[in-house]
Amino acid sequence: MFAGVDLGGTNFTVVLAEADGQIVAEDKQPTASHEGPAAVLERLAGRIERLATATGRPLASLGIGVPGLVDVATGVTRFLPNLPTQWRDVPVGTTLSARLNCPVHVLNDARAATLGEAMFGHGRDARTMILFTLGTGIGGGVVIDGQLRLGPLGAAGEMGHICVEPDGLWCSCGSRGCLETYASGPALTAEGVRLLLSGNAPRLHELCGGDPARVSCETLGAAARAGDPGAQAALERAGSYLGQAAAAAVLTLHPDLIVLAGGVAALDELLIAPLRRTLHQRVRMFPADGIRIARSQLGVRAGVYGGLAAAIRGGNINRTAA
Amino acid sequence: MFAGVDLGGTNFTVVLAEADGQIVAEDKQPTASHEGPAAVLERLAGRIERLATATGRPLASLGIGVPGLVDVATGVTRFLPNLPTQWRDVPVGTTLSARLNCPVHVLNDARAATLGEAMFGHGRDARTMILFTLGTGIGGGVVIDGQLRLGPLGAAGEMGHICVEPDGLWCSCGSRGCLETYASGPALTAEGVRLLLSGNAPRLHELCGGDPARVSCETLGAAARAGDPGAQAALERAGSYLGQAAAAAVLTLHPDLIVLAGGVAALDELLIAPLRRTLHQRVRMFPADGIRIARSQLGVRAGVYGGLAAAIRGGNINRTAA
Repeated sequence: MFAGVDLGGTNFTVVLAEADGQIVAEDKQPTASHEGPAAVLERLAGRIERLATATGRPLASLGIGVPGLVDVATGVTRFLPNLPTQWRDVPVGTTLSARLNCPVHVLNDARAATLGEAMFGHGRDARTMILFTLGTGIGGGVVIDGQLRLGPLGAAGEMGHICVEPDGLWCSCGSRGCLETYASGPALTAEGVRLLLSGNAPRLHELCGGDPARVSCETLGAAARAGDPGAQAALERAGSYLGQAAAAAVLTLHPDLIVLAGGVAALDELLIAPLRRTLHQRVRMFPADGIRIARSQLGVRAGVYGGLAAAIRGGNINRTAA
Repeated sequence: MFAGVDLGGTNFTVVLAEADGQIVAEDKQPTASHEGPAAVLERLAGRIERLATATGRPLASLGIGVPGLVDVATGVTRFLPNLPTQWRDVPVGTTLSARLNCPVHVLNDARAATLGEAMFGHGRDARTMILFTLGTGIGGGVVIDGQLRLGPLGAAGEMGHICVEPDGLWCSCGSRGCLETYASGPALTAEGVRLLLSGNAPRLHELCGGDPARVSCETLGAAARAGDPGAQAALERAGSYLGQAAAAAVLTLHPDLIVLAGGVAALDELLIAPLRRTLHQRVRMFPADGIRIARSQLGVRAGVYGGLAAAIRGGNINRTAA
C-alpha cells in the first residue's frame, strides 16, 4: 500500500493506493498550520495510519508535496511562503518516516503536481512537458524525456516568476513583473474588483450583486462566459501573460505538452485560448503547432497523485519511467 | 581521425582531431555561399579530404554545425536565415557522407557550440548549463544532466528569442521584443551609432573619429572600458536584457552554469556584470549565487569543437557523457 499526501496551507489530502495508482482510500482534513509542524505532522501521520490499518496492509512508502522549497535529499523544508515561519527547516521526511516506519519522499507541491500529471495524467503520452499550477501563487514543474527536473535545490520549474513586464508589479518574491503578479488567483480577483468598481463589467456586476467581496476567479469566469467584455479582456490579458512566460520555457526546451493545473485552471479555454495565441505569436523560430496545451487531467488532485507517484517510485522520484 | 566543421555564412572552419579532442589539423576558408550548396559542400569535402590524406589516416566520422534549423535525424537543412534560400532542404548529411565515405552528424551551430563547450570547455564540470551565442543573431543551447537538449526539431535552446520587452522592437523571427533585438552584434552596433550621433559618447566619438561606419561592438567596448558613460550604459542595458532572458531559463531549469559564446562575448565583464546583477534581481525564489557565469572557454572555436564532439560521439550526439 502506498500513500500520497498534498499538504496545503488550508487543507491536507491523503490517498492510499495500489502500485498501479488505483486509489483505495482518501481523506481530507484542515491543515490548521498555526498548531505548528509537530502537531500537524502527528495528526497527519495518525490519519494515514488509521487509513492504512483499515486496509489491513502495511504502508510501503509515502510521498508528500509541501507548499514551498524543500531539500529533496533530506526531506527538510526550506522556505514555505504560505505557512507560518515555524514551518521553515522542519525535518518532514525523517519525522514522518520515524512515525510511520516507512520511506518518505518530500517534494515541492507544484513539482509533485507535475510528477502526478506525468505519471497518471496527460503527461503519460508526453516526453517533455511543462506545467503551471495556478492558485494563490503560480508554481510549476518541468519533465524532460520522462524525468521530473528538480535541480540542485528542488527549485527548477519556478516559471511563475518569469518576468513578463520588466517594470511591472512588485511580486512577493522580491522581483517585479513576475507572471504570478498577473495570472494568479489573487491577481485575477484584484483585477475583477477593479473592473467592478470601474463600472465596465455589467455581467460581473450582476453576478456579484455589485459586491466586491463576491468577486472571484469563478465569478470573473462566469461573467466572461456570459459575454462581459471587461471580464473577457481581463482573462485574455492573464492568458496572454501565461503564453509569454510559457513561450520562454518553450523556446528553451521545446516540450510537447503544456499543462495548467490548480484551482484557477478551471477557467480552462478562457485562459488557454489566449495562451495558445500568444505562444504562437512569440515562438516563431520553429512551429509550435505540435505543442499540446491542456488543463490538468487530474485537476486539483494532481498534487496528491504526485505524492503517490513519488511513493510508488521509491528513491527514484526523478524518473517517471522505470 | 575525426573531423569537426563550423559552416558559417562567411567562413567555414574544419578541424581534424584525435578521439580525445587533440587537434591535428585546421583550415579556414570563405564559405562563398552564393556558389550554392552543391559547390560549397564539394569544396568543403575536398578540404577535409586533403587534410585527412595528409594525416595518412582514414576519417572515422564528421560532425558539422550549420547556421539554422536542421533535421538532426536526416541531416537535411530546414531554415538557414543567414544563407541564400537555395540552402533550404539541402541533404548536407547524406551529401557529405557519400562523398567522404563516413558517418556525418549535422546540427544547428549554436547547439554545436553548446556541445563543444560541454565536452571540451567550461561545461566539463557542469551538470546543467545554458549557453548563448552572441553574434549576428543570438542562438543558444541547453545541456541537462550532461545531455545536449535538442527537442523534436533540434530547436530547443532558442533563448535568443525569449521576449524581454512585450511591446519591444520587431525581430527578424516575426515576434517582437526578443532578446536578439537588444543584445546581438547588429543591435549593439546600431545603439552605438545612435549614441555617436547623439553626441553623448565622447570616447566612442574619439575612437571612431566621429565616423558611424567605424562603430562596432569592439569600439563600443573600448569606449566603455575608457570610461565613456554612454557606451557603458548601452552595454549595461544589453547585459541586463541578457540577464532577464537568462533568468527565465534559470527559473525553468536551475542550471549550474551560464556561458556566453560567439564574437560579442568578447565584451566579457561589460556584459557579464549586468547579466549577473539582473539575474540576481530576477531570480528570488532560490539562491542564484551558485550559478557560474562565464565567457566560453573555447571562444569562437566552440562551434567547430561541437562538430568534433558530435563526430567523436558518433550516433550518440545527444549525450556528452558516455
